[in-house]
Amino acid sequence: MATVAELLQPVEADLDALLADLRSLIGAGHPILQAAAEHLFAAGGKRLRPGIVLLISRAISPAGELESRHRRLAEITEMIHTASLVHDDVVDEASTRRGVDTVHSRFNHRVAVLAGDFLFAQASWHLANLNDLEVVKLLSRVIMDLADGEVKQGLFRYDTGQNFETYLEKSYCKTASLIANSARAAGVLTGLNPAQLDSLYRFGRQLGLAFQVVDDILDFTGSDQQLGKPAASDLASGYLTAPALYALEERPALAGLIEREFSQDGDLEQALDLVRSSQAITRSRALAQGFADEARDALSWLPPSPSRSALLALPEFVISRLY
Amino acid sequence: MATVAELLQPVEADLDALLADLRSLIGAGHPILQAAAEHLFAAGGKRLRPGIVLLISRAISPAGELESRHRRLAEITEMIHTASLVHDDVVDEASTRRGVDTVHSRFNHRVAVLAGDFLFAQASWHLANLNDLEVVKLLSRVIMDLADGEVKQGLFRYDTGQNFETYLEKSYCKTASLIANSARAAGVLTGLNPAQLDSLYRFGRQLGLAFQVVDDILDFTGSDQQLGKPAASDLASGYLTAPALYALEERPALAGLIEREFSQDGDLEQALDLVRSSQAITRSRALAQGFADEARDALSWLPPSPSRSALLALPEFVISRLY
Repeated sequence: MATVAELLQPVEADLDALLADLRSLIGAGHPILQAAAEHLFAAGGKRLRPGIVLLISRAISPAGELESRHRRLAEITEMIHTASLVHDDVVDEASTRRGVDTVHSRFNHRVAVLAGDFLFAQASWHLANLNDLEVVKLLSRVIMDLADGEVKQGLFRYDTGQNFETYLEKSYCKTASLIANSARAAGVLTGLNPAQLDSLYRFGRQLGLAFQVVDDILDFTGSDQQLGKPAASDLASGYLTAPALYALEERPALAGLIEREFSQDGDLEQALDLVRSSQAITRSRALAQGFADEARDALSWLPPSPSRSALLALPEFVISRLY
Repeated sequence: MATVAELLQPVEADLDALLADLRSLIGAGHPILQAAAEHLFAAGGKRLRPGIVLLISRAISPAGELESRHRRLAEITEMIHTASLVHDDVVDEASTRRGVDTVHSRFNHRVAVLAGDFLFAQASWHLANLNDLEVVKLLSRVIMDLADGEVKQGLFRYDTGQNFETYLEKSYCKTASLIANSARAAGVLTGLNPAQLDSLYRFGRQLGLAFQVVDDILDFTGSDQQLGKPAASDLASGYLTAPALYALEERPALAGLIEREFSQDGDLEQALDLVRSSQAITRSRALAQGFADEARDALSWLPPSPSRSALLALPEFVISRLY
């Protein structure tokens, strides 16, 4: 199986340039933000989101060339994503993300709020200056979905009555909307037809959902070290994801443990045993696989190119994190 | 002298409807945000910013009627303003604003970050859906200026070497940009000519600067009770405004007190005496008066209407807070 670096190889140089741009854009003349920018846009991150925008932009370009507006779109995508992570970490009081200190724990929550606002503001400014109202609408929808997802996530904590639809909606808002709408926006900038735009959106949506479900499974099956955070931390915090929701159907005893917020000794361990001994992980894997297959199928119409090959391999790469 | 309620009388009903809209928009389906929305958009606030947009919209409308896009613009203006206040209060660690608890002290900084993001997101979504790229650019410039102003303010704390230009730039970013660009945007939606648009922008810019200088003077001359915060709190926090910068020219001893961040007993009182015994307050008043006069002159071309009269009286009303 390819690594993510191998998959992003067709746009590796583009991504390096993008990260350098972002570091200088955010840090320029603002010592307070400089350190936060270095921290946020350090080299070596995988940058899947701008990578996808860049791969799509190259794959749909008649000459395989990248236009400056597509580069800018990829940058905006990463700014919005990073701004939302920085603020979410304040709201969720997370102290690490994938094993790295969050901005508000490394600096403080004032710098985190400021850095996030500055990134959102830069994103909205550059977005307007792409001079395409349709693209502005797509990305402002993303910003709304991200805020909405964060609110929804808080609303349904420890709520065993929530249905699967709610979970998918929250996953769409928090993860898939950005990938789906930025993929579509890349197509809008190239002037693709409506059916092609729909397929780019569908690719991003299904890939984003697969990505989120895989993340949610890993929370149950990964070790603390693999995850860069304590295992089962979603469940412990009351965030009910695919495995927990499937397990609730099979193991009614789980509901009681969740509803009393794991307040008694051994509750969380017992809940984990219930999830792991059920069909929940198997069913969640099938769900993720379905989304991944749909994502891949959505792009079969692309003309052959290294970028197309990378895009078609991405969904299976996302799934491979499970094995 | 008229009260602000009297001045806003031509758009009183519009403002009431706008506040009701904002409360339901932000609170709908989100109990976490509901309380914050009630708190933020409580009846009785003066709502000068949307009031100005509404007055301008009526004053430039051929029939004196308000279109729904102008109403929406006024709403967006208030959303951006409120979002920025809520986040600034987190960044500045302010516990009250004009005598009222801030969101992060009433609730906590997590709710404040979430509420601010939600408001920014709603604003950016409604903005895109006004379907006017020029208006999107004007308001996204405002969002950028607000973030920039907050960063600048932090950068120049206790910096006695900063020049007057820096202070005016920061005041433009934090206060005048929103009024100036939303005034211009109202004109764009009505289809005014470039000279008229420039004069709307100039009105908003000079009024915003007058407003900020008056605020900065009151910090030195008002009592704790009048201000709803401790007097001279700007100076104590190291924010050097017009009175302090003028006083520095006359009283070199002031620089030492500021540079050691008022670390010795009696430093702040001594600094206040130096400012109050100089020409600084008189010169600051003249500065504010100049901005107010320029604001009024910018709109003399408007056709007669109750809204025009209110707009022409506004600059003098801002100055009257000093006496």
